[in-house]
Amino acid sequence: MSVARVGEFGLIARVTARLGVGPTCLLGPGDDAAVVSAPDRRVVACTDVLVEGRHFRRDWSSATDIGHRAAAANLADIAAMGAIPTALLVALCLPPDVDVRWAEELADGLAAEAALVGASVVGGDMSASTTLTVAVTALGDLGGRAPVVRDGAQAGDVVAIAGRLGYAAAGYTVLSRGFRTPKLLVEAYRRPQVPYGAGPQAAVHGATAMIDVSDGLLADLGHVATASRVGIDLCADAFDVPQQMRDAANALGVDPYSWVLGGGEDHALAATFPEDHGIPDGWRMVGHVVHGGGLTVDGKPYKGSAGWDHFR
Amino acid sequence: MSVARVGEFGLIARVTARLGVGPTCLLGPGDDAAVVSAPDRRVVACTDVLVEGRHFRRDWSSATDIGHRAAAANLADIAAMGAIPTALLVALCLPPDVDVRWAEELADGLAAEAALVGASVVGGDMSASTTLTVAVTALGDLGGRAPVVRDGAQAGDVVAIAGRLGYAAAGYTVLSRGFRTPKLLVEAYRRPQVPYGAGPQAAVHGATAMIDVSDGLLADLGHVATASRVGIDLCADAFDVPQQMRDAANALGVDPYSWVLGGGEDHALAATFPEDHGIPDGWRMVGHVVHGGGLTVDGKPYKGSAGWDHFR
Repeated sequence: MSVARVGEFGLIARVTARLGVGPTCLLGPGDDAAVVSAPDRRVVACTDVLVEGRHFRRDWSSATDIGHRAAAANLADIAAMGAIPTALLVALCLPPDVDVRWAEELADGLAAEAALVGASVVGGDMSASTTLTVAVTALGDLGGRAPVVRDGAQAGDVVAIAGRLGYAAAGYTVLSRGFRTPKLLVEAYRRPQVPYGAGPQAAVHGATAMIDVSDGLLADLGHVATASRVGIDLCADAFDVPQQMRDAANALGVDPYSWVLGGGEDHALAATFPEDHGIPDGWRMVGHVVHGGGLTVDGKPYKGSAGWDHFR
Repeated sequence: MSVARVGEFGLIARVTARLGVGPTCLLGPGDDAAVVSAPDRRVVACTDVLVEGRHFRRDWSSATDIGHRAAAANLADIAAMGAIPTALLVALCLPPDVDVRWAEELADGLAAEAALVGASVVGGDMSASTTLTVAVTALGDLGGRAPVVRDGAQAGDVVAIAGRLGYAAAGYTVLSRGFRTPKLLVEAYRRPQVPYGAGPQAAVHGATAMIDVSDGLLADLGHVATASRVGIDLCADAFDVPQQMRDAANALGVDPYSWVLGGGEDHALAATFPEDHGIPDGWRMVGHVVHGGGLTVDGKPYKGSAGWDHFR
């Protein structure tokens, strides 16, 4: 049955019936606004929008996958501040011929990804549109800590990574060439595996700067370098390129480092730590913060795809 | 210059440069997420999306007008909980040929409307899209009060209104018939005048239920009646139909009460109060809560347009 047939209020009722309510949700969907707990008298908030044909394709990803990914993109931004996500709000624009089941499964994906961190979908809005669009807002709690921002990196700090790099970009390339395997890469594109806990962990460990890798590691660390007025030098050998990624890169005629260093959407976290602190468990050291500016790999400018610009 | 020409990061830089930072914004745009104060350990949050061709037309409203309206739709939802807005986040989807100035002026409108209540635009996201879409999330603070929800109306309560009814719907009809006057109505459609302060005022005064009139008074009070398991009877004479609206209605062959009772988007607030409390200054009594269910006008079912469904 199409969403046009059940109408706005019918669709909202069907979707909200599927959403669980998390412990931080004091008043859930159904009123003018939701009420969410903000235990430390501050709330962390971010918004990320996914547009069909630009951020996802319905023939490449299921509705549930797209829900997982839309939630993950936002939850990762909250984690990158050192915070714990508490809630999602979702503005959903649907072509009227979309099946109701698609919208329900999207909600399932959003709710399931949020539940991984104890958060829930607390509100939203729906409209018809010719372009399928999912705009998500995430809220989070800092637990009394200072937010970890982009401009705190200092020369001498080490640069470390939590999570995967290049998997989602490789999966995207695989799909865009018409293949459906290797599954490891395609599934990584469909549902990123975000190291949410590593964000608060890094904050507790004294991270000086942190960012979610959404545009590509070089582009995102470039934002840290610019904001902190420092340079960052990465060590190519520090990056793990798994065999399946090497094989896919060979088969497709791609430099796998363009995925690892230039690909976003795995939502890894990148952070800088004072050298004498060491790095937390589960993080991998990949470079150093240096005086100067810009990004280098093994001391030299990297000549490859540096990330995405969504208007180009 | 088109948004495609300046690119995503250029556009973000130009737009954020125009945004002021309000007193509740602890960390503004430019990082993975913003940080907003939430003094009473709870945050009120809602999302509303405006889609070109469905919620606005660029030939009917300026970018600044659309910014005001997108902000107002969300800020009114926060007020309708009895809360004071603290922050907006904006997900903006733009066709690549849109002029940069249009996006800048939209941001000006969003920021100016938020500033009316001491809030500011603290974050957002941008993407290219074939459909111009503005998804706004608003946050707010309850100041220690309980949220005023939809399900608290009791038989015997009085129903009261703050703000205008039917002006925006009349302006919409005027524009859709190809006219540009009367200005009073057209301007009301372009920039609603929302009684933001009346929301917290009603909460302090002991309102038992409250809602923002966005779909039309009958539709929105219908939500209150359903949620509270009561009926609501409105008194037609209690509604002020200004002369310019009567004249426009005559000229266009429209029943002005279809605008007043069925038109949304002025973002008036409707609330119920225990009869012995009276109603706060600036509110107008328009009816009573009764046993039973559904909406009546002067004791009879109203036969007219009852509001909008955005998928039909």
